[in-house]
Amino acid sequence: MNKYQKTIKKFAKERNWGQFHNPKDLLLGVVEEIGELRNVVKWEQDLTKLREVMVKNKDEVEDGIGDIYWFLALLANGCGVDIDVAIEKTIADNKKRFPLKDTKDRHTNRFLGGKDKKYDKK
Amino acid sequence: MNKYQKTIKKFAKERNWGQFHNPKDLLLGVVEEIGELRNVVKWEQDLTKLREVMVKNKDEVEDGIGDIYWFLALLANGCGVDIDVAIEKTIADNKKRFPLKDTKDRHTNRFLGGKDKKYDKK
Amino acid sequence: MNKYQKTIKKFAKERNWGQFHNPKDLLLGVVEEIGELRNVVKWEQDLTKLREVMVKNKDEVEDGIGDIYWFLALLANGCGVDIDVAIEKTIADNKKRFPLKDTKDRHTNRFLGGKDKKYDKK
Amino acid sequence: MNKYQKTIKKFAKERNWGQFHNPKDLLLGVVEEIGELRNVVKWEQDLTKLREVMVKNKDEVEDGIGDIYWFLALLANGCGVDIDVAIEKTIADNKKRFPLKDTKDRHTNRFLGGKDKKYDKK
Repeated sequence: MNKYQKTIKKFAKERNWGQFHNPKDLLLGVVEEIGELRNVVKWEQDLTKLREVMVKNKDEVEDGIGDIYWFLALLANGCGVDIDVAIEKTIADNKKRFPLKDTKDRHTNRFLGGKDKKYDKK
Repeated sequence: MNKYQKTIKKFAKERNWGQFHNPKDLLLGVVEEIGELRNVVKWEQDLTKLREVMVKNKDEVEDGIGDIYWFLALLANGCGVDIDVAIEKTIADNKKRFPLKDTKDRHTNRFLGGKDKKYDKK
Repeated sequence: MNKYQKTIKKFAKERNWGQFHNPKDLLLGVVEEIGELRNVVKWEQDLTKLREVMVKNKDEVEDGIGDIYWFLALLANGCGVDIDVAIEKTIADNKKRFPLKDTKDRHTNRFLGGKDKKYDKK
Repeated sequence: MNKYQKTIKKFAKERNWGQFHNPKDLLLGVVEEIGELRNVVKWEQDLTKLREVMVKNKDEVEDGIGDIYWFLALLANGCGVDIDVAIEKTIADNKKRFPLKDTKDRHTNRFLGGKDKKYDKK
């Protein structure tokens, strides 16, 4: 388990917060952060400008990303998941799911003709 | 930058996916994963049973957590945020925001009498 | 089309806001409102108390519900959906999907043994 | 109360589903639908194409909109909110919040110079 996940575990344990860490609360915590990040980019349609406003408000974005990780760590701690193991699996899965030859310069939206091997299998 | 964030950066670059990685798409990617995780816990009200069903479906939860990290890394890469730096800041902030003496055995929902120094300042 | 959906259509048209009403922005708009409503109920685990705090903060909840409808109407207007027709279909679907005899006093979480005919078919 | 909200109330009451309708579950229900709708539009950046794919998959979008209304009605029923009253208030608020002269042909993202009287007041 990485040091951040461990620190967050200790923080919650010291406060005896397990009683409040219902997975539903933690999932909704992530949702709230996504909503806050939305405020930085909303209504603008130009991708270059969207990136500029994100960089210009890097503190805001950094806050949101850190807070999402925080909730993710609490969720993982509640059910014995090691976040780093989870990431390694996702990376390995995505290598199989999106082979370079099928996905270079192409998106993977199936409604718009994109390939996504996860759904081919189904 | 940690090795996972770097690997995900390389993965996206090889595919030339920057053109698709609008921050709005990445935020909605996280939302979709939250929605999938909701299926594991929905409608059950008993906290013990909620934890049991999460542990029993650890693969599903691990998948969701890994995928959320994936989108988080793409978002961070798009605006020059180092995820580990973001987490360190959140941990430092939360130590100030939720002092042990105010928050031990207490939740922080202000609508229900909880203390949250973030809002005291405002 | 009901009068609310019509009024919202006119409001957006007068402002020439179609150029900003990317479906992704509207979906994220709903997400932001969900995040705000989360603040009213977070961390509390007692269902009775959750209902009390919702009723006590009825204005807050009413705001959130109205705002979600607002984004829903803009989304519907953007792709020729009549909200009332959509609701009628959902009601008809759910009558088939959740027959009274299978679902009285039972939840429909499949991970916890619940029945949901939508997934039986798959 | 409109006939849809009433029908949904009766549907839930017949099944004695109040015991499962924790506001957190209903909020997460909306999140799941948003995640499903994301699949229709993800990764595409052209606003015209986004609208075309929404119209082409109108059934999918209609389903999502109907299901979101369903959860909204259950949430409203749980705390004595009349959805139509909520919408009327939102419409009245937005007329004040976004005066035509300030917002015609302009978005309201404050991070990008937009005006939003809700935040001016704060």
